Amino acid sequence: MKTTAKAHTNIALIKYWGKRDESLILPMNNSLSLTLDGFYTTTTVEFQDSLMSDRFYLNDRLIDGKEYARVTAFLDRIREAAGRPDAFAEIHSTNHVPTAAGFASSASGFAALAAAAAKAIDLPTDEQKLSILTRQGSGSACRSIYGGFVEWEKGAKADGSDSHAVPIAPADHWDIRVAAVVLSSAEKKVLSREGMRRTVETSAYYPAWVDSIPDDLAAIKDGIAERDFEKVGEIAEANCLRMHATTLAANPPFSYWHSTTLSIMQAVRDLRSAGVPAFFTIDAGPNVKVLYLPEYEATIKETLRNVPGVHDVTVSRPGQGVSYI
Amino acid sequence: MKTTAKAHTNIALIKYWGKRDESLILPMNNSLSLTLDGFYTTTTVEFQDSLMSDRFYLNDRLIDGKEYARVTAFLDRIREAAGRPDAFAEIHSTNHVPTAAGFASSASGFAALAAAAAKAIDLPTDEQKLSILTRQGSGSACRSIYGGFVEWEKGAKADGSDSHAVPIAPADHWDIRVAAVVLSSAEKKVLSREGMRRTVETSAYYPAWVDSIPDDLAAIKDGIAERDFEKVGEIAEANCLRMHATTLAANPPFSYWHSTTLSIMQAVRDLRSAGVPAFFTIDAGPNVKVLYLPEYEATIKETLRNVPGVHDVTVSRPGQGVSYI
Repeated sequence: MKTTAKAHTNIALIKYWGKRDESLILPMNNSLSLTLDGFYTTTTVEFQDSLMSDRFYLNDRLIDGKEYARVTAFLDRIREAAGRPDAFAEIHSTNHVPTAAGFASSASGFAALAAAAAKAIDLPTDEQKLSILTRQGSGSACRSIYGGFVEWEKGAKADGSDSHAVPIAPADHWDIRVAAVVLSSAEKKVLSREGMRRTVETSAYYPAWVDSIPDDLAAIKDGIAERDFEKVGEIAEANCLRMHATTLAANPPFSYWHSTTLSIMQAVRDLRSAGVPAFFTIDAGPNVKVLYLPEYEATIKETLRNVPGVHDVTVSRPGQGVSYI
Repeated sequence: MKTTAKAHTNIALIKYWGKRDESLILPMNNSLSLTLDGFYTTTTVEFQDSLMSDRFYLNDRLIDGKEYARVTAFLDRIREAAGRPDAFAEIHSTNHVPTAAGFASSASGFAALAAAAAKAIDLPTDEQKLSILTRQGSGSACRSIYGGFVEWEKGAKADGSDSHAVPIAPADHWDIRVAAVVLSSAEKKVLSREGMRRTVETSAYYPAWVDSIPDDLAAIKDGIAERDFEKVGEIAEANCLRMHATTLAANPPFSYWHSTTLSIMQAVRDLRSAGVPAFFTIDAGPNVKVLYLPEYEATIKETLRNVPGVHDVTVSRPGQGVSYI
């Protein structure tokens, strides 16, 4: 009954940006990601008859409040699906996502939790069912069920039963790397969930964003199949800029970028001008991820670490999907 | 016959962004500006029978090349309109636009040139005709014919005869100020005319930009009439961000911003958080203009000068339209 699962985080090359259903976490557009070896969560779940509520430990610390509520609400879905609404669990989760890497741990966290809890409670699943389940905990986490390059199909059904990840190419298909560049100053965070919602509701450019996705997806999947780094990098970078542009047309407008974000973007463009193939992508925050090829790793790390305002650079290669340990 | 005219530059609060006719300089959208007292050009034109071609002096220096070609091509339109295709002129132009202010001198330059040349050659004009003429030299220059708050009506006719500026409110209607903030590093300039064209032709967000203008214009004109600084500032800032967002969705994407541009934007937001009403606007380049009320001038200047990467801050109040001296 006691089950441990491991899941990696992922970085979106085509961004998930906007929900069509807040409760089921159904997206407005398909997205595409690369699962990353370097950053993962391990989670152990054991359902115990003696428990009257869940107990959730994160990095050996007992958690309460909002974070606990989100986990236990997610377990409610699993208990219900398994027909055991009164089964409560002890959960131990460890994040191997260096804070300094600037990744949200929700992707690896909810993927590991879903996998461990479903198995612990004997809920029959396959990867697709697990992806659907995981999505309801954290949208982008549904992509972490698979390794390598992964697409999240938005689906069309109101109940979300066709909104899940599908594998595009495994981790060993292509060794491209991701450098996570984190800024020194943890400046005031701009609304992340709230920002997404405000953009969907008010941005003059949001409909055109959604319309632009199918072309990006078709092209980047060709690029991945052909292992065409320039193509994949250019599409990912353009997609990221197009996503961030939607926030500038929200009402009121806002931006996730800090001045150092722009310095890093410029450093990446300068690398390209100097003949080093590198492309950036940015999620809903000021940190930057840089895509590069293995042979340039030393140059990439040195260049990015020398950008004023950069705190740390952590690199990763493609990672595997969820596994049991 | 020897005529001297003076014209001020202007700053767009609703941006001119995209041409529907490159040759006649007809815009895709209406724009709205404030003419600025601090930055102007004086131009003296004299048509002389002895001349076989135009002679153009800028700041006492004889000009040739592209800059000369642009001026003489513009004078061709005036010669033709006046029915004197063989009349050539000596032109002396002086820019009182500190280079450090980061304004293009084309707005004040072409407005002063059009006014002086038309009078010198006895071409009957009124301000509207002068605005139409000026527009064909430099689009945004057509707004500098009038003082204070000015709208450039895009017009609908193919010959451009209804595309000209109209006065919205004179300079003495409202004393709001503009600080021109110039960056230290004159970094490589990104395509200005070329950028506009690429955006019109390729940006996924360009159609929505054009669609968004009528609401901005209606609201900002209310704000100007009511002297509602928050309203005018918010609309101008949002319009600027929406314009720049179109470049991020161009193919390939690009941006006029440098890291210091973002630092200044943040400084302006911080001023607002501290209770100082201030708003920014940015043209097709990295420099920033800040709108503020006279009572905060000392604070604004000090704050902006202290932003790392800022070279200089030059302030101006609303200015008059074109005049003869």
